Amino acid sequence: MQKKYLMTPGPTPVPAEVLLAQAQPMIHHRAPGYSEVFVSVLDGLKHIFQTKNDVLVFSSSGTGAMESAVINLFSPGDKVLVVNIGNFGTRFVQICETYGLNVTNLAYEWGERAKASDVAKALEEDKEIKGVFATHSETSTGVVNDIEAIGNVVKEMGAAFIVDTVSGLGALEFKTDEWHVDVAVSGSQKALMSPPGLGFVAISKKAWDMVEKSTLPKFYFSYKKSLAALQKTTPQNPFTPPVTLMKGLNEALKMIKEEGLENIIERHRILGKAARAGVKALGLDFFGACDETSNAVTAVKAPEGIDGKKIVNVMREEFGITIAGGQSKVAGKIFRLGHLGYYDKFDILVTLSGLEMTLKELGYSFEPGAGVSAAEKVFMENPF
Amino acid sequence: MQKKYLMTPGPTPVPAEVLLAQAQPMIHHRAPGYSEVFVSVLDGLKHIFQTKNDVLVFSSSGTGAMESAVINLFSPGDKVLVVNIGNFGTRFVQICETYGLNVTNLAYEWGERAKASDVAKALEEDKEIKGVFATHSETSTGVVNDIEAIGNVVKEMGAAFIVDTVSGLGALEFKTDEWHVDVAVSGSQKALMSPPGLGFVAISKKAWDMVEKSTLPKFYFSYKKSLAALQKTTPQNPFTPPVTLMKGLNEALKMIKEEGLENIIERHRILGKAARAGVKALGLDFFGACDETSNAVTAVKAPEGIDGKKIVNVMREEFGITIAGGQSKVAGKIFRLGHLGYYDKFDILVTLSGLEMTLKELGYSFEPGAGVSAAEKVFMENPF
Repeated sequence: MQKKYLMTPGPTPVPAEVLLAQAQPMIHHRAPGYSEVFVSVLDGLKHIFQTKNDVLVFSSSGTGAMESAVINLFSPGDKVLVVNIGNFGTRFVQICETYGLNVTNLAYEWGERAKASDVAKALEEDKEIKGVFATHSETSTGVVNDIEAIGNVVKEMGAAFIVDTVSGLGALEFKTDEWHVDVAVSGSQKALMSPPGLGFVAISKKAWDMVEKSTLPKFYFSYKKSLAALQKTTPQNPFTPPVTLMKGLNEALKMIKEEGLENIIERHRILGKAARAGVKALGLDFFGACDETSNAVTAVKAPEGIDGKKIVNVMREEFGITIAGGQSKVAGKIFRLGHLGYYDKFDILVTLSGLEMTLKELGYSFEPGAGVSAAEKVFMENPF
Repeated sequence: MQKKYLMTPGPTPVPAEVLLAQAQPMIHHRAPGYSEVFVSVLDGLKHIFQTKNDVLVFSSSGTGAMESAVINLFSPGDKVLVVNIGNFGTRFVQICETYGLNVTNLAYEWGERAKASDVAKALEEDKEIKGVFATHSETSTGVVNDIEAIGNVVKEMGAAFIVDTVSGLGALEFKTDEWHVDVAVSGSQKALMSPPGLGFVAISKKAWDMVEKSTLPKFYFSYKKSLAALQKTTPQNPFTPPVTLMKGLNEALKMIKEEGLENIIERHRILGKAARAGVKALGLDFFGACDETSNAVTAVKAPEGIDGKKIVNVMREEFGITIAGGQSKVAGKIFRLGHLGYYDKFDILVTLSGLEMTLKELGYSFEPGAGVSAAEKVFMENPF
């Protein structure tokens, strides 16, 4: 018997209450019973997005929701700026280029945090830029951008602001309206502790105006079609939604409401702090600007001479703990500990303990128990 | 207490085994454990599609999978023919037009069946037509097209053949390879007795050649990206897949394999026969060519002077039975009984009995019990 622990930055562990909510009898998506669930999900999402804007839900991964923002707001040739600090920034670049937008790629080294002043400069240099894309919590590096500061700059310059907060929403403060985010993009499988398969967008008035002018073709991901279905007497989706996932998410949102958004963000803050304290006590280095803002994921450099992929494999095979390796250009060089969603103190301790035993086995030298005791110290000093 | 019965042509009832398979602990979509599930799902789908072609799975509704065929095979201005016998044929027209294809709409009156000879004529008249779209089981009317006959014509003329078999697959014989279907499109929530949220396509060699030439932009629904992820050492999806839905579908496919595809299609044939016998015994008329081929859904004209919507409402509110009304231009004029997926003899009897009591209440005159006894007769004469 080997218990399994899912400690990746998405999908994240799903509480049994949510898993079982998916097991309720199937209902029809045009009948009133479904509308109740759907409306409740939308209310819950608006609360977490801290928005009064329209929220739409797609049957898709987070990437589908990212693509929806590109094809609904823009037209071929439109100038856009992508604030790119990692794998998911690069994804926005790829999507924008796929759809013929004229992309300025404000690319940082992986591990760096974007500077609002660079965004201001880029927008000053090209006043035709219509939209700015940014990543809130860059899952590939653990780095969190200052969306508030970038949002102020973008608003000042009149462009639309599109933010991927797939791994940020619910783990970090995210104030859609206050931070001037015109399209906030997220998904079900990260801090919202639900299974993957639902993508969300929160759309501002300014974004809706752009939707009117956009000429890129869209059908499945059409915001207008989704809004029209939402505005029916019994609010619904234009195409058959994933009913079981919606029921699961509804249950998760109830649990989130009960815990309270502020408490949840504080919990994630302390989890991140404990993860970092543990990693540091083992003498390991963080990757780049993975720092005190990294509530959702801790990116760690593999120690000199040890392949990061080996750490991931030993953790999974010998200890049943799934963590994430490095993506793309940092494959093998880093490993990532997810600590978001349905995640509590002892999940950090399990991860650190598994990491200690793995590193020991791979010949890395450190003081055994140092990681877990550093995390315990954080928890004792920061009760939640 | 009122038991609920889902008798619509999708979503369909989901067996508890499948609902509960979704409740297994979350696993990571890049880890080997997921690959096993995914490969098993692909094998199961190929068996039902009766194909050796590549099968891809998307996190989307069936409409997303329909759209994928349009954007992966074609380029703006390409001439295509849509064989349109109802709501879902019209959907293909809308998607093709959205993406700038040059559409010949071979539209029939709702309730009619397409003729292969009309397709041949249309292709003779315009030899530049590159693709033909058709619906197998038109869910809006219950009418089933002769895909084999149309497939022969399309092959003869050298065009690609794209078929929506969302409500057909698993309820009716569907021979992807033998019938020369280049892209077969389906979804999880109909005869495959799984929750909605997964779209499938089976792609022929000829279709892959067209993918190489297509200039329409695509990212989320890119066939090439999906194929590349599938061909990794641990087969996976390019973007986070709906893991719980995949586990549910895997369980459903095991149940399908156990029952045997031939037996399943025979079961659906008899269910359709019994539904029609019951409806006929109540003196009601079918809508158009809803006939002996209509394994998946029976479309019935609302009796003179009775609103079809009322029948649907009384069935649901008083008897807990959800059936489907008419869509679009036949709203209120017809109602539809789904009998596909996890559906057995007594589901037909429940539906017919509920229908009898509903019609009685709405003042329609008929011999009480005639519907259910006609269905019983079919079951006794056609054991399964």
